[in-house]
Amino acid sequence: MARQKSKYSKPFDKKGGGKRRPPRSKPDTDRVFLFGLHAVEAALANPHRPVYALRATENAAHKLGPLIAARNVAIERVLPKDLDRQLGADTVHQGVVLEAGPLEPVTLDDVDPNGILLVLDQVTDPHNVGAALRSAAAFGASGLVLTERHSPPLTGTLAKSASGALDLVPIVHVKNLAQALAELGERGTLRIGLAEEADATLEDTEIARPLALVLGAEGKGLRQLTRERCDLLCRISTASALASLNVSNAAAIALHWARLKANAR
Amino acid sequence: MARQKSKYSKPFDKKGGGKRRPPRSKPDTDRVFLFGLHAVEAALANPHRPVYALRATENAAHKLGPLIAARNVAIERVLPKDLDRQLGADTVHQGVVLEAGPLEPVTLDDVDPNGILLVLDQVTDPHNVGAALRSAAAFGASGLVLTERHSPPLTGTLAKSASGALDLVPIVHVKNLAQALAELGERGTLRIGLAEEADATLEDTEIARPLALVLGAEGKGLRQLTRERCDLLCRISTASALASLNVSNAAAIALHWARLKANAR
Repeated sequence: MARQKSKYSKPFDKKGGGKRRPPRSKPDTDRVFLFGLHAVEAALANPHRPVYALRATENAAHKLGPLIAARNVAIERVLPKDLDRQLGADTVHQGVVLEAGPLEPVTLDDVDPNGILLVLDQVTDPHNVGAALRSAAAFGASGLVLTERHSPPLTGTLAKSASGALDLVPIVHVKNLAQALAELGERGTLRIGLAEEADATLEDTEIARPLALVLGAEGKGLRQLTRERCDLLCRISTASALASLNVSNAAAIALHWARLKANAR
Repeated sequence: MARQKSKYSKPFDKKGGGKRRPPRSKPDTDRVFLFGLHAVEAALANPHRPVYALRATENAAHKLGPLIAARNVAIERVLPKDLDRQLGADTVHQGVVLEAGPLEPVTLDDVDPNGILLVLDQVTDPHNVGAALRSAAAFGASGLVLTERHSPPLTGTLAKSASGALDLVPIVHVKNLAQALAELGERGTLRIGLAEEADATLEDTEIARPLALVLGAEGKGLRQLTRERCDLLCRISTASALASLNVSNAAAIALHWARLKANAR
């Protein structure tokens, strides 16, 4: 909390003769804000995650006690309404906000070459990407591949929806998804694109690891070049052509299925 | 758009001598507001859905043209910013808001007695309930059962997340879920409760129709009496105990699995 200033203090005297200037808005990509108990807990437990400052209610600080002590992070005790003010009243912060740094970038070379990768082609909604990341963690996916452009930032809402998975699953950002898929193909990865209009169903297709499951945004679907770089296109078999699946739900189903059915080649 | 009033008009004269009084806020449960193209499209296409008035952009009105004509609904042309103002700038309305009435209440007697029911035990988040409803439609579930209390209203956000499924899947509200599950048991329905801490996995359990898949809210899980009225408790087999599933993703996976594996008894 900023201490109240004396009305005689003139903090902007040097620059503007007492007139207030708005602070310069520079994009600070070196800082991410994580909120929600699971997201913050996972960040504190991740030794590769830089952590700078924590604002927490009495209750949240108690729950995170041992992790806070282990990371030796500065903590400011706040009331829930202070966080409401910082994040907006609609944000479910669960009494804690962590100011942290981003994780080191990861490349395709860094992920398990025999695992199951989830690939999202320009999915922009942070709730959906976060929920898909959460399912990737639950089903032991080796990583999440995102396009550099038209993907949400790895902070706030995405981190909350991921419920800690942001600090569990390696995330690879690629400039050119078609090229990344070509590289994966050269490494022997089976690349399956999920597309509602495909003839083949995922359930009737033989699948094997290493595997990449590729999903596009709702409405837009997979881009043309993304499709062309897949070995095959499948749909999840549904009962009704009228009803489509939410992208994170489709990802969850595909990851669940792949974990059960994809044996190592 | 309200026409601009002359400054000489005194619409509150009769009651307050020219002073403005705030309108009385009475909960109007006879009106639901549906937004988003899919939600509105499904409502217009549903002959059982009362529809009263439509606010739509040129573009959205064009897309919904035939349905609007068929329902003979009054339409007000608006700009996207008018709907931003009505719903809040963060709401993805896709250029259309429909003022409609609720559907007729449905009871357990009204749903297919041999189908697959999705049952949510006090899941309060409208995004999650809407997404689960969408999956229920996609996998041909016979209905969604919700608790009367601690469930979100069947309007706005839930309808948008359901992407039209609100007008496709029968929804049964029950006062007492334990009693409703007991009734389903008497009708021969296999009642499976999904619980992370269960020993049995859904994948290794023999399942059959009629089936009820029962899920609780995240964190809270299934209530004690709900558990007791289930024939068995199962978990979805995940790779990591560290990572849990979002409730709508768990519902999607369970519905997908049940559709494939649950044969009629």
